[in-house]
Amino acid sequence: MTQIEHTTVWSLSDINTLVEGVLEGEGATQILGLSSVEDAREGDLLFAESTRFLNAALRSPASAIITTPAIRAEMGEVSKPLILAENARLAFMTALERFAPPLHFPEGIHPSAIIASDVVLGEGVRIGPGVTVEEGCRIGDRAVLFPGVYVGYHSSVGDDSVLYPHVALYPRVTVGKRCILHANSVIGADGFGFVLIGSVLRKVPHLGSVELGDDVEIGACSTVDRSKTGITRIGSGTKLDNHVQVAHNCTIGRFCVISAHTGIAGGAIIGDGVIFAGQSGAADHVTIGDRARLVARAGAIGNVPAGETYSGFPARPHRRVLKEWAAVGQLPEGLRRLKALEKRIAELEERLMQEEPSA
Amino acid sequence: MTQIEHTTVWSLSDINTLVEGVLEGEGATQILGLSSVEDAREGDLLFAESTRFLNAALRSPASAIITTPAIRAEMGEVSKPLILAENARLAFMTALERFAPPLHFPEGIHPSAIIASDVVLGEGVRIGPGVTVEEGCRIGDRAVLFPGVYVGYHSSVGDDSVLYPHVALYPRVTVGKRCILHANSVIGADGFGFVLIGSVLRKVPHLGSVELGDDVEIGACSTVDRSKTGITRIGSGTKLDNHVQVAHNCTIGRFCVISAHTGIAGGAIIGDGVIFAGQSGAADHVTIGDRARLVARAGAIGNVPAGETYSGFPARPHRRVLKEWAAVGQLPEGLRRLKALEKRIAELEERLMQEEPSA
Amino acid sequence: MTQIEHTTVWSLSDINTLVEGVLEGEGATQILGLSSVEDAREGDLLFAESTRFLNAALRSPASAIITTPAIRAEMGEVSKPLILAENARLAFMTALERFAPPLHFPEGIHPSAIIASDVVLGEGVRIGPGVTVEEGCRIGDRAVLFPGVYVGYHSSVGDDSVLYPHVALYPRVTVGKRCILHANSVIGADGFGFVLIGSVLRKVPHLGSVELGDDVEIGACSTVDRSKTGITRIGSGTKLDNHVQVAHNCTIGRFCVISAHTGIAGGAIIGDGVIFAGQSGAADHVTIGDRARLVARAGAIGNVPAGETYSGFPARPHRRVLKEWAAVGQLPEGLRRLKALEKRIAELEERLMQEEPSA
Repeated sequence: MTQIEHTTVWSLSDINTLVEGVLEGEGATQILGLSSVEDAREGDLLFAESTRFLNAALRSPASAIITTPAIRAEMGEVSKPLILAENARLAFMTALERFAPPLHFPEGIHPSAIIASDVVLGEGVRIGPGVTVEEGCRIGDRAVLFPGVYVGYHSSVGDDSVLYPHVALYPRVTVGKRCILHANSVIGADGFGFVLIGSVLRKVPHLGSVELGDDVEIGACSTVDRSKTGITRIGSGTKLDNHVQVAHNCTIGRFCVISAHTGIAGGAIIGDGVIFAGQSGAADHVTIGDRARLVARAGAIGNVPAGETYSGFPARPHRRVLKEWAAVGQLPEGLRRLKALEKRIAELEERLMQEEPSA
Repeated sequence: MTQIEHTTVWSLSDINTLVEGVLEGEGATQILGLSSVEDAREGDLLFAESTRFLNAALRSPASAIITTPAIRAEMGEVSKPLILAENARLAFMTALERFAPPLHFPEGIHPSAIIASDVVLGEGVRIGPGVTVEEGCRIGDRAVLFPGVYVGYHSSVGDDSVLYPHVALYPRVTVGKRCILHANSVIGADGFGFVLIGSVLRKVPHLGSVELGDDVEIGACSTVDRSKTGITRIGSGTKLDNHVQVAHNCTIGRFCVISAHTGIAGGAIIGDGVIFAGQSGAADHVTIGDRARLVARAGAIGNVPAGETYSGFPARPHRRVLKEWAAVGQLPEGLRRLKALEKRIAELEERLMQEEPSA
Repeated sequence: MTQIEHTTVWSLSDINTLVEGVLEGEGATQILGLSSVEDAREGDLLFAESTRFLNAALRSPASAIITTPAIRAEMGEVSKPLILAENARLAFMTALERFAPPLHFPEGIHPSAIIASDVVLGEGVRIGPGVTVEEGCRIGDRAVLFPGVYVGYHSSVGDDSVLYPHVALYPRVTVGKRCILHANSVIGADGFGFVLIGSVLRKVPHLGSVELGDDVEIGACSTVDRSKTGITRIGSGTKLDNHVQVAHNCTIGRFCVISAHTGIAGGAIIGDGVIFAGQSGAADHVTIGDRARLVARAGAIGNVPAGETYSGFPARPHRRVLKEWAAVGQLPEGLRRLKALEKRIAELEERLMQEEPSA
């Protein structure tokens, strides 16, 4: 079993100050790392959102726990020092941020990188071995291009963005500031469009491009295709998981969460704050309203109104789908009941038929 | 917002000649680019396939419009010059082809590329930095290998084919002429086959290979696996979108369209002109007939006859599936009606039972 | 059509000794390769698991056939030499292993590879052009890193493991012995976790890592994400197909088979010997028991007991799902029957109502 080496040491009281909590117990306790209860070692700080988790955390070898005042109030005396915070989850995340190792990457431009002579490089860029940056590009201040990244001509990467190994930007792609593009993602490949002429498929040229806003994250092996004309857009703050496909001419809003294996087809318009759960999708040219949610496997072949939760394929309101799923579960028995009724009614009809003559 | 720079200028009459249309209005109008109505700027040529779109296009800042004679006939006087073409879509595509920027890639072989000494290189090949071509390969005339492409030993790439960054061809793969392999696609990885011996999985060796015909397009991050013995084949003119999986020993016909996230399992046989919509699939060893269509999410676990449209999982004729979907929507109410009937029939039975003694 | 070149020649009797079979016919027969019946050429050895396949194999140009004694017993005299083996499939696989070409890759470390000075390199490592290995890494004996592989700092690769082109290991990833990582797979990218603060998504830091056991195979373009804290684990002997997603903090057991396009969400716990068929999935934090099976497209949103076969979405016991699928097929007619019953019962009620006054 691999152990993450501890490279940072903080006192519990320093962490408490950082997360603006209330400290209970020994502030000098040394915190070496954060973990979950299953992996806890001495020196670890844990996080408990329920009395059950707090009890488990107290029994673990960890050295301290972040929890809420309300959960703390349900317990008597405790054996470990605590940090109490109303938003314990946020407090834990803030602590995680402090313990996160900094991006490990050498300063400067590796001599094996191929940078066209007219590329505009910002201050403090870090460019690894085997990177290619074509003519007419702009790389922002402090941007990091890991080994093997390819930046096609006339593309730009904003300040503080990080492109992990083998990211490919096709020509004329714009990446905003503070974006994170994970390894082997591909931005700006041709949209998938063909016209059938006789039995032959003729490729539709894709003259447009792709624009990622600021603070966008693109998962490993995810793809965003260039538009036919105009721009495929991903709004600022939107996050894509791994293996996501965004087709040509889509417009995706701000702060959307798009989970793994989701596919969004050509020309779809996605509002702000939309959530796509895993393996979901949207058909071409549909409109998904702000803050709508598509649950896992939902496939929207029509529009989804703002704020609604849809599921199933074709996607419909989740509440209705739950009723349908329950009904389908009762269906085999329902068909047996239907058959029994048919028999009973036939008997009644026969009996009444026999009474008829006597009427 | 990124604007695509205009680098080409054509007169409308020159475009009209190119697309073999009928010109109405000022032929000297300068066309700088093509766009959709939402992105239209002065200098743009648009495309309208309905009177609604034509009206929108006429209100836009665009400089000219391609439409059909029939749609034109429904309007009175118009404010912009028009190109009239029976197949307006094809005419627009022809214009798109003329405005598409040429592939931007330097001539020759970058000194950092590693080319084995016995590789046969065609005339005018363009090979970028960090490309590796192993022994025994053949690279056709005018083929383009973008940075980081890997060509395994004894593979071949046909004339005029383009391999975008980080494409990996495993050994003994054959790529035809005029193929386009998008970034990070992988051709010829081992098929996924194991034999369970006790509780241990033993890898089935895959000795075969992969052959792509001419004019094949492979999307970004798509994969085509090598066969156990024999060849995994993709027919000429077939197009794969992003994130497509073609497993070992498949045979795929000509001019198929295989959309994103589709998975085709081992040994499946796909005819000519088959269309797989997004997130669809075919199970191992099924046969899909010529010109069959699988709608989005359809999963064929049995054969699909030629020319049929299938949907759902397991995939069945689409018309039948539509009826079933509608019926499922009525099911929760149907079960309530069934329950009500049971009550009514029980009442009838009881009443007739009570009448019995008096009979 | 590409022909696999024959580079190995064995006599049939040597192969028979290797697979521990019983030879019938000419042992001196020269075997040049193995194939399926469709691709058979002279010199090929085939495999037949039924009399139908044996008949087809006998009619083919192949030179010899492996089959079972039981199938052989159903035939009279045969025209080709045979190898008889109780487990004919395993015998054929053993022969396949002998004919598999050895991994073709030059010895030593290519001068263009960038290896940090403190990296510990095992004996006989083979490292290709353009590979980057960061500080603090360990590369085991006889490990092979194909061109463009990236190994992030403090990662390790076990003895005899093979990383195909453009594999990316993020920092602190552990790969066991004899693992095979196919091209463009990504191990250790950040888990997909964000906290919504107001309308803004704030990234959850992922401090943990990924550990692959021994004999793990990872398909092309597959991804395994690093955990928030602790380790995302894949047990020894487990095999992932192409385009598989394993999210942060998952624990996957030994000898699992995870087919293409499967997605396993955060924190899921998968037992030993579990089979995920194509395009299936498991929701976050579910537990899948040992030797459970998820059929194609199954999506487990709750736990699956050990040894059970589940299908559908939400995944339920396969037998029950088959009944529901059959019932849904009868549903459109069922609803018509329900309507007819309602009419008949209304008629009965009316009739009895009319009799009432006369009672």
